[in-house]
Amino acid sequence: MTSVSAVLAGDVAAGARLIRWLEDGEPRGRALLAELFAHTGRAHLVGITGPPGAGKSTLVDALVGEFRRRDCRVGVIGVDPSSPFTGGAILGDRVRMQRHATDANVFIRSMASRGQLGGLARSTYDAALVMDAMGYDPVIIETVGVGQDEVEIAMLAHTTVVVSVPGLGDEIQAIKAGVLEAGQVFVLNKADRPGADDLRRQLELMLHLRAHGERASAWEPPLLATVATRGEGLEAVADALNAHAAHLRTTGQFTQRLGERSHRVFVAQFAQACAQRLLEPARLDPALASVVDDVRLGRVDPYSAVEVLLGQLAWRPSGAPPC
Amino acid sequence: MTSVSAVLAGDVAAGARLIRWLEDGEPRGRALLAELFAHTGRAHLVGITGPPGAGKSTLVDALVGEFRRRDCRVGVIGVDPSSPFTGGAILGDRVRMQRHATDANVFIRSMASRGQLGGLARSTYDAALVMDAMGYDPVIIETVGVGQDEVEIAMLAHTTVVVSVPGLGDEIQAIKAGVLEAGQVFVLNKADRPGADDLRRQLELMLHLRAHGERASAWEPPLLATVATRGEGLEAVADALNAHAAHLRTTGQFTQRLGERSHRVFVAQFAQACAQRLLEPARLDPALASVVDDVRLGRVDPYSAVEVLLGQLAWRPSGAPPC
Repeated sequence: MTSVSAVLAGDVAAGARLIRWLEDGEPRGRALLAELFAHTGRAHLVGITGPPGAGKSTLVDALVGEFRRRDCRVGVIGVDPSSPFTGGAILGDRVRMQRHATDANVFIRSMASRGQLGGLARSTYDAALVMDAMGYDPVIIETVGVGQDEVEIAMLAHTTVVVSVPGLGDEIQAIKAGVLEAGQVFVLNKADRPGADDLRRQLELMLHLRAHGERASAWEPPLLATVATRGEGLEAVADALNAHAAHLRTTGQFTQRLGERSHRVFVAQFAQACAQRLLEPARLDPALASVVDDVRLGRVDPYSAVEVLLGQLAWRPSGAPPC
Repeated sequence: MTSVSAVLAGDVAAGARLIRWLEDGEPRGRALLAELFAHTGRAHLVGITGPPGAGKSTLVDALVGEFRRRDCRVGVIGVDPSSPFTGGAILGDRVRMQRHATDANVFIRSMASRGQLGGLARSTYDAALVMDAMGYDPVIIETVGVGQDEVEIAMLAHTTVVVSVPGLGDEIQAIKAGVLEAGQVFVLNKADRPGADDLRRQLELMLHLRAHGERASAWEPPLLATVATRGEGLEAVADALNAHAAHLRTTGQFTQRLGERSHRVFVAQFAQACAQRLLEPARLDPALASVVDDVRLGRVDPYSAVEVLLGQLAWRPSGAPPC
């Protein structure tokens, strides 16, 4: 059964079902989430991002092991934007993190895009809320680290871990550069590889420049070396994550970041709902419907059409009955 | 001077300025675009996508050379989502495609994300319209090929070219897999590398399976081998692009795809404008403003808040004065 109490009790089947309902946009999912919402806000959300080939999955796997040694119940969300056409996650739950698959204290879900702009960010937000309500803490969110949505997802966590590795090509390094500015913890993975020293110097320089460029902050982003395949350096990463969570709680930013996260989802969802519902032919005035047709027929540019429509939209005055 | 006539006459400075205004969301840009719109719809829009490391930039460079040999004036839009934080394109115009930089018949712009969801897709649409009005044909749009937005951008072209290369890692190949289903022309670049034969067989199998899975279509996606660094195979790619454009024109899909493209931009823009304008505190009823505050304070989940707001939004009846 999928009920509020089942999810709050940590029932994995109930939690998984709720996440699926939310991904599919089912009303019963939203209704349940509204009830659960008061029980969220406790989990530390950790975003892990970096270029393809940085060994993020292996790092997450090792990090889960480290948090399990500390008796934490760990949630993991793998964000996989690779298959917008099939709607299915290629790197599915089954092939990842085999060794934690039978551990009831580790809850792993992969999110795939359903093709809607912003859909991935919303699904990830939802899944993190459900895991939070189920008592998983931390909740680790792994993203590919390229693309607008993916970066946004990583940024919405309490703590963003940026993973770099030596020896990637120029194009891949360039992709990574944009993400660097968002991190609170930096990991140099595959630190036993050639080029690790060079990369370390580059990252140190970047962190140094960044420290001088921004307002004084009590948090200095650490740069930590790991060899995730051998489990090396993970203790320090887990320590840094806990330290950052403590820092956020002390400064009041822990709750504040969650509020910002909810507000962003709210604005995105409001935008999408406006377009979906208000543009339904049945709700449109015939005069306005012809403007929409004109766009499709190339008679008017989309921006002019938006202006026409927006001018005809209004809030009902207070006290007026809703639609 | 930036005027409709200057842009239509192909004035590069005027075109570049208009694209920048549109990227920055300046009203004078939108006004000019509305006037120019009737002069668009002629250019063949070609999306080029594929994983990082596939040699897309080199391929585009060689393809521009091939189209120049055919006396086409070529527009190139490089979509660079790598830097959402700085707002600047890392792979800037200056470092790319040096050899075409002094050719007045090649117009190259890089689009960087301004951080707004969907902003990249819109900027690319705008830039393509401007180049179209300026008389460039084809307009080649190069995207990274990972991430939701980027795939969407490639799909909105008349013709999507999917570039594959032998010897990329598993993770990168997985990213690529999702894009495969969207292509009308397939290019196996770096075809002189080890593993090219294996990759060719995989791609042929995929195209074979796809041909059986979909409704009968008159267009069979060709698979073409190139070594872009040596300019090999580009003639066949240009021929395939022209053949696909001809196919689209014959079947009426050329104009239809443009209309769909405009409609998607319209819906996305309407959504964003709804959120931006309607949620402005000055426009919100005080009762509704408190709902927005509740989201930020974690008192209500974002979806419930959206429902409350949507219920209070309405179209003005026909004939009523606009806001």
